[in-house]
Amino acid sequence: MGSRRVSKLSNNSCFKLYPSQGEPAKALSILLRGLAKLKVTLNRELIQLKLGEDLVSKLKPLFYPNSIAVIGASDNPTKLGYRYVKNLVEGGYKGRVYPVNPKLAGREVLGFKSYPSIFDVPEEVDLALIAVGARLTLNVLKDCASRGVKAAIVFASGFAESMGEEGRKMELEMRRISEESGMVIVGPNCLGIVNLAVGLNTLVEAVIPKEPGRISFISHSGSLMETFLTTSSERGFYISKAVSSGNEAATTLNDYLEYFIEDPETGVIAMYIEAIKDGRRFMELCRSTTKPLVALKAGRTEAGKTAAKSHTASLAGSVEVWNGVCKQLGIIQARSLEELYDLSMALACPLRPSGNRVAIITAPGGPAVLATDACEELGLRVPRLTDDSISKLRSMLPPFASPINPVDISASALEDIDVYERVLRVVASDPNVDSIIVIPPLIEYLMRVSKIVVNIVEECQKPIVVAWTIPFGVGVSELLEAVKLLGRKLVPNYFMPERAARALAALLLQSRIEERKKRARGS
Amino acid sequence: MGSRRVSKLSNNSCFKLYPSQGEPAKALSILLRGLAKLKVTLNRELIQLKLGEDLVSKLKPLFYPNSIAVIGASDNPTKLGYRYVKNLVEGGYKGRVYPVNPKLAGREVLGFKSYPSIFDVPEEVDLALIAVGARLTLNVLKDCASRGVKAAIVFASGFAESMGEEGRKMELEMRRISEESGMVIVGPNCLGIVNLAVGLNTLVEAVIPKEPGRISFISHSGSLMETFLTTSSERGFYISKAVSSGNEAATTLNDYLEYFIEDPETGVIAMYIEAIKDGRRFMELCRSTTKPLVALKAGRTEAGKTAAKSHTASLAGSVEVWNGVCKQLGIIQARSLEELYDLSMALACPLRPSGNRVAIITAPGGPAVLATDACEELGLRVPRLTDDSISKLRSMLPPFASPINPVDISASALEDIDVYERVLRVVASDPNVDSIIVIPPLIEYLMRVSKIVVNIVEECQKPIVVAWTIPFGVGVSELLEAVKLLGRKLVPNYFMPERAARALAALLLQSRIEERKKRARGS
Repeated sequence: MGSRRVSKLSNNSCFKLYPSQGEPAKALSILLRGLAKLKVTLNRELIQLKLGEDLVSKLKPLFYPNSIAVIGASDNPTKLGYRYVKNLVEGGYKGRVYPVNPKLAGREVLGFKSYPSIFDVPEEVDLALIAVGARLTLNVLKDCASRGVKAAIVFASGFAESMGEEGRKMELEMRRISEESGMVIVGPNCLGIVNLAVGLNTLVEAVIPKEPGRISFISHSGSLMETFLTTSSERGFYISKAVSSGNEAATTLNDYLEYFIEDPETGVIAMYIEAIKDGRRFMELCRSTTKPLVALKAGRTEAGKTAAKSHTASLAGSVEVWNGVCKQLGIIQARSLEELYDLSMALACPLRPSGNRVAIITAPGGPAVLATDACEELGLRVPRLTDDSISKLRSMLPPFASPINPVDISASALEDIDVYERVLRVVASDPNVDSIIVIPPLIEYLMRVSKIVVNIVEECQKPIVVAWTIPFGVGVSELLEAVKLLGRKLVPNYFMPERAARALAALLLQSRIEERKKRARGS
Repeated sequence: MGSRRVSKLSNNSCFKLYPSQGEPAKALSILLRGLAKLKVTLNRELIQLKLGEDLVSKLKPLFYPNSIAVIGASDNPTKLGYRYVKNLVEGGYKGRVYPVNPKLAGREVLGFKSYPSIFDVPEEVDLALIAVGARLTLNVLKDCASRGVKAAIVFASGFAESMGEEGRKMELEMRRISEESGMVIVGPNCLGIVNLAVGLNTLVEAVIPKEPGRISFISHSGSLMETFLTTSSERGFYISKAVSSGNEAATTLNDYLEYFIEDPETGVIAMYIEAIKDGRRFMELCRSTTKPLVALKAGRTEAGKTAAKSHTASLAGSVEVWNGVCKQLGIIQARSLEELYDLSMALACPLRPSGNRVAIITAPGGPAVLATDACEELGLRVPRLTDDSISKLRSMLPPFASPINPVDISASALEDIDVYERVLRVVASDPNVDSIIVIPPLIEYLMRVSKIVVNIVEECQKPIVVAWTIPFGVGVSELLEAVKLLGRKLVPNYFMPERAARALAALLLQSRIEERKKRARGS
């Protein structure tokens, strides 16, 4: 998985993914011709050329820096130049940290000796966090490039997104600096990056997850990256890395995508996309990987496009073309940021259902009815279990419980919670069942049922998804503990069964995408 | 609002809302003819006949009992017969409580003197909570009826939902007891009722809201009622009353619906529906009120119908007919239980937008793009503000902020949070704006922004909805505090702007439904 690499094409590709207004049909035809050509050119031999290695080694100092300089560092806790240093301390970052600011006059910041300029720092710097305003940015970048800094993040806004021609010129200059020096530049107008494995995090307002997971996130919005990370803190530690790509003056979504495709710690790639600068390369990259790709596309409407433009200076394209691209390339689409998280969590599960047959096991009745409707509406099936399973279940359940499917244990589960284990074991080994939704009691025994699920998912190797029926914010601490246990074991879990059903549908879709991509490679 | 009453029809109405399989087209035609007739028969004179008063006075002892007997009470904390007494104590119920159980041999339960039988209780009993098994239920009900108890709730399962013909017979007997004695019977196979205003709550597993609100909920599922109530505890205290109608042997969804239509404390009626026993009366009731009606219909698929049948012995009908009924009668449909809560919260807001033009005010950029797309996709518009507003906003925002719409204050809001107030005041008085989505900063100043919103919504009398960008369960206590403040002031608020947009779309739809219903009355 993720072992194939594709060549890095120029940002100036003549292939245009997003047509201007009014020519979607023409664009679709161009697109389809493009896809046909890709099928020919991206054959097995070609895509095995290891042309992606350059990019991976180039971006490594960004995600795994041995040393970080904070340019514009401050010892004033209200300033960003202080916050970036503090984040590194709190994250447990193990590399060297160099606060840089002539105004500090050699004072320490959180115990780190400061330097008047990047030229005074005593060693090579892998990553520079540039906490200065837009006006000073270009000079700082030039200094960093001269000093041999390998990667820099420009947080400031005030470029193409709001300053018109002048802003665009500054971004072109950034790109020139990056190309000439080989220094990676992230942003501008971004919130930077996160790599939980090394304690690196440049976010300002977010609750940072305490443990790393398998999802890496590329976001055209810094604040949505903060929301995504904070959601992970609530929902069970699923994030590996994240990057807010901002205006993408020099480094684009495609570059991060290629890096994450190669990254062994990344199991799922989630994307919030306002617009893609090089559609052809994007398509090649998506086609080259069987890693799950999940995307939320903004700018789906005219007004949304306008809003995106003033946000990250991006030009979004036609929604029809985008839908076609997703279908062709096996990108699973989310309809909201919450769903982007939900589906990423689903796809972080390493198991795949071998078909569309779902069993539902519950104590509360109503949620099982909702689960059934949701499954069937999403193209899944809730079939009758085998007679053998039904008769086994009948013998272990009270007469008013229902042993068919959904298996409704009834409230009697509260008197003997281990009935979940016995029932789940029968259902998991039923040949009519490809995946399972488990609905625990509302409030009690949430950890006990979670542990049962973790054990049985290891035994049966079928995807099991847990659907809670109380929300996360209501103060039931056992729920938050259970969520984290399931997260560590990559068991997707959601508030309410409708979302659990959607997760199983996405897992099934992904398993078909993977099969199709493997067949396409083999042929 | 809610001042018109309709006659109570028999449960044996010949009008069949749900056709059997395979005849949806025929059913639709019957339905449309039915609707045409209703238009004629339900004219102004007829619906002003106050025939609903009987039912309202009949159900009053259920929701506002002066005295409650718990039959099958227990002093063992693991038993339901203890739990019901405990709930009354914890809820602060002010009426008299009589534990009844010969096995108690006169011992107290939580300080209340117990009695061997309902005949020994020294006063008239308004409500009996029947905490005995299915087998004993009929005899207990007969005793209660003889003693003149006004309402009884049967919690036990083991009737038509699981015991076939025998169960159905027991339910017919229950109905006979109710009709002969005039005693209201709720259930069986239910979790009872909640009236937060009087501290009445028979739920077993739920986090009960601490303050009452304006939404009353009728649910064919007890556990979904527990979820709904618990969600209210998280999301800001919106519930007035709730009832889990169970198998509806004697009292049906229609009865509770009629009661809530008349109830001055109920502002919104939310329903989780598996099947409706008397479609014609349901339609008359829905047509008779301008109170917001929100429904989640289960059994939308064949498998879902089967699941519903084993859950509450109900026979669900065709989804096409249901969709037509909702459109005709002004019922707003939810697609999930979470959305049922979201939309009920929206409609609890007493303000109505006069058109579809939404302004979006934000500090984080990405969520505003999502809000814009969501609004436009739901048929709302995000128009340009007037030049006057734009020039005022420009003068109060930094140059890199965007004053058009969405109004992106940018992260500079964190340095001067009162800019939200100045911006909101300009936007709220803009004649191009009918309603507003406010997106606060991610984590900081959540209470400050909420207070600003509360003040300005009172000034401008346009609906304002708040969209948070961090989830409720992540441990930010200021968020939970702000949610409760907004809840008390009936300002709808959601995690993520997509849900806020959906809420505004529902408010606009409701305002059109109310206009239509008022026109129909006037004509």
